[in-house]
Amino acid sequence: MLSATDILARKRDGAALTDDELDFFVRGIVSGEIPDYQAAAWLMAVYLRGMNPAETAALTRAMAESGETIPQSALPQPALDKHSTGGVGDKTTLIVVPILAACGVYVGKMSGRGLGHTGGTLDKLEAIPGLSVDVPVDRILKQTRSVGACLAGQTGNLVPADKILYALRDVTATVGSLPLSVASILSKKLAGGAGAFLFDVKVGDGALMKSLPEARALAGALVEGARQNGRRAVAVLSDMSQPLGRNVGNALEIAEAIEVLDPATHDASDVRLRNLCTLLAIEGLRLARNLSPEAAGAEVENSLRSGAALDRFQKIVAAQGGDLSRLPVAPVQRAVLARESGWVASIGAREIGELVVNLGGGRRTKADVIDPGVGVVVHLPVGSEVRAGEALATIHAASEADFETARSRLERAFALSSNPTEPPLLAVGKI
Amino acid sequence: MLSATDILARKRDGAALTDDELDFFVRGIVSGEIPDYQAAAWLMAVYLRGMNPAETAALTRAMAESGETIPQSALPQPALDKHSTGGVGDKTTLIVVPILAACGVYVGKMSGRGLGHTGGTLDKLEAIPGLSVDVPVDRILKQTRSVGACLAGQTGNLVPADKILYALRDVTATVGSLPLSVASILSKKLAGGAGAFLFDVKVGDGALMKSLPEARALAGALVEGARQNGRRAVAVLSDMSQPLGRNVGNALEIAEAIEVLDPATHDASDVRLRNLCTLLAIEGLRLARNLSPEAAGAEVENSLRSGAALDRFQKIVAAQGGDLSRLPVAPVQRAVLARESGWVASIGAREIGELVVNLGGGRRTKADVIDPGVGVVVHLPVGSEVRAGEALATIHAASEADFETARSRLERAFALSSNPTEPPLLAVGKI
Repeated sequence: MLSATDILARKRDGAALTDDELDFFVRGIVSGEIPDYQAAAWLMAVYLRGMNPAETAALTRAMAESGETIPQSALPQPALDKHSTGGVGDKTTLIVVPILAACGVYVGKMSGRGLGHTGGTLDKLEAIPGLSVDVPVDRILKQTRSVGACLAGQTGNLVPADKILYALRDVTATVGSLPLSVASILSKKLAGGAGAFLFDVKVGDGALMKSLPEARALAGALVEGARQNGRRAVAVLSDMSQPLGRNVGNALEIAEAIEVLDPATHDASDVRLRNLCTLLAIEGLRLARNLSPEAAGAEVENSLRSGAALDRFQKIVAAQGGDLSRLPVAPVQRAVLARESGWVASIGAREIGELVVNLGGGRRTKADVIDPGVGVVVHLPVGSEVRAGEALATIHAASEADFETARSRLERAFALSSNPTEPPLLAVGKI
Repeated sequence: MLSATDILARKRDGAALTDDELDFFVRGIVSGEIPDYQAAAWLMAVYLRGMNPAETAALTRAMAESGETIPQSALPQPALDKHSTGGVGDKTTLIVVPILAACGVYVGKMSGRGLGHTGGTLDKLEAIPGLSVDVPVDRILKQTRSVGACLAGQTGNLVPADKILYALRDVTATVGSLPLSVASILSKKLAGGAGAFLFDVKVGDGALMKSLPEARALAGALVEGARQNGRRAVAVLSDMSQPLGRNVGNALEIAEAIEVLDPATHDASDVRLRNLCTLLAIEGLRLARNLSPEAAGAEVENSLRSGAALDRFQKIVAAQGGDLSRLPVAPVQRAVLARESGWVASIGAREIGELVVNLGGGRRTKADVIDPGVGVVVHLPVGSEVRAGEALATIHAASEADFETARSRLERAFALSSNPTEPPLLAVGKI
């Protein structure tokens, strides 16, 4: 007979757990028969002892099957799901999903909330007055069929095991475990029913994965795990050593997403952001519709130039009750000026992310309420020449006092150099 | 500012925790500010990453100071505390404490209950009708002064951190960790107020420590930890590859303890049991009163021959309300006969211990109620010559059905050989 303590002891001693043991453990966690203190000790044992690919795949399946699942046949075809491991200023989902929808790829996507220094897509969407992300599964499917996409929160009883384990990992110092991260991400994608997955694995100071080898390992494991479960997948490795795009903060990021999507402003939008979104959209389109790089590139370009992608974004927002004409703005908007001349050598992404959380734009605990209007607009990205007195960035704050606190932190985040510097590579690799 | 998650992350990564971090963590566990799932993940990290001697000492002190403590000055002098790491048939405390009391050494001792295959001293004492082990601290001190010893349960608010961690270790597969075991044992001794500690570290199949190197490491760490805290200590390493003495089971072990203590039956009692008790008593007496081996040996021998030790045992039992004239007996007492001739090569101590638990003599969960009358009496120890049809042991059971189940298990526990065999060494070492 299987016992939680025996399974703990085996993982503690470095043994590979069997499919039956992982099924038993995941079922026990969801039913409550295995209490959270046993789950917590198991998470630490997995963190320190690791899991081989077969164990990781079995854990992923057990988690995916721990609640309801959406069958692949329930979604209109071709259906794709996108996942980013999270970064500072990462609004790519808000741009790539409408592009894909305009190119005939259906995206019924469930996103997460932000916790810590990286924002969550749900929090960004909720900056739009009236918009609801609490969409039940049947309405996700209906909206995906009618407007091509739905951007919802984790709903109903999908992957309950992940809800429990994710919350425990956060408070047991076991977030940075490769097999646990793979199982968490992939189980939700599998339960979501899409046939193809597009992963954006961020690497750098502002990301979960700080180094390229770690990021490569996660990307490889995600793609391999998806294939083992009969889904197509591609992973892009992209830079997160500086914030992505100019705007960090919930309503500010909605505004910047529209800037990229709108043909009238597209060419003036941040070049790194729009290049990464185009790259991700092309990879997604090739994966879902099996197109050549040239054909996919032309369709993506056309969806942006014609306004079709913007139109899809507006339709998705409207379908979920949002009103884009009334985005919240912060009462205090003040620039931070360079104290000396030189070149921007680096902008600490993590520091900027934490600064925005402190302004009220993110949560320190799950109970915190977000102020959607606050944030930072970066004017000079890494590699820019800067003169003393020029604006490095503008802080959007709820009060003068908040601005003052944020200003010194922002000055710390910007490193200036007396020599010209090169921006880091935008896309580091593809798996 | 210290945080539980940061402390978890540092131990996860193999760092040595500071005194402040360990104080913070232990205080948080006791106050409830650190929830049990964080404590559980920490226990697994400590199990897998270990602790250096300075960390172990700091954890021990933090645990000892987590609640009330008895100051050394509150006990009559010389005061000694004894601890066994637990074994099958281990009734040495019931024999050694009265001997020491008869020799002028005060023992105010708090014992534990049995869980798993080894019995606890408290459960054995409670087999005596009327006897109470729930003795508050002031009455422990008073009884120790008047009759020389008190055998009580863990009382009041002494070492609350250990109560929480011990219960968690049992269900998180972290029992076998050296630093956690040292801190658990030693924190209770430190809080108990004695100036000298006598440790009996069991080694073998029926003990916590299965191998001699493990047992030696635990014994060394206990003695070193005691010395670092200004107490004198000695550790005896003794064999637990077969049950200790003839009787296993609560009331049966009380009867066997009296057999050793009573001058009329002493010479007929089990030779290994009485030799180990004499050895432990001599070590305890030397430690507490700084005697030569010869002088200590003579006092111990005299306390047994004169009946003084038996008198102390009877006084201790009477002071705690016990009535030795009415020890419970099991309704079914049947011998298990040898199926062939030969020599007894081994008697699996763990198997015998689990057999007695299954008869009702121990607990599988904390809620189980113990049947004090059941158990096993071993007639032929390891090394004995045996003829087919001779009684290997007698099972004391609550029913014929229980006897039948126990019989097959008992036959598995006895390994016979066609060649003469030697019993294992009784005392393996001293530190």
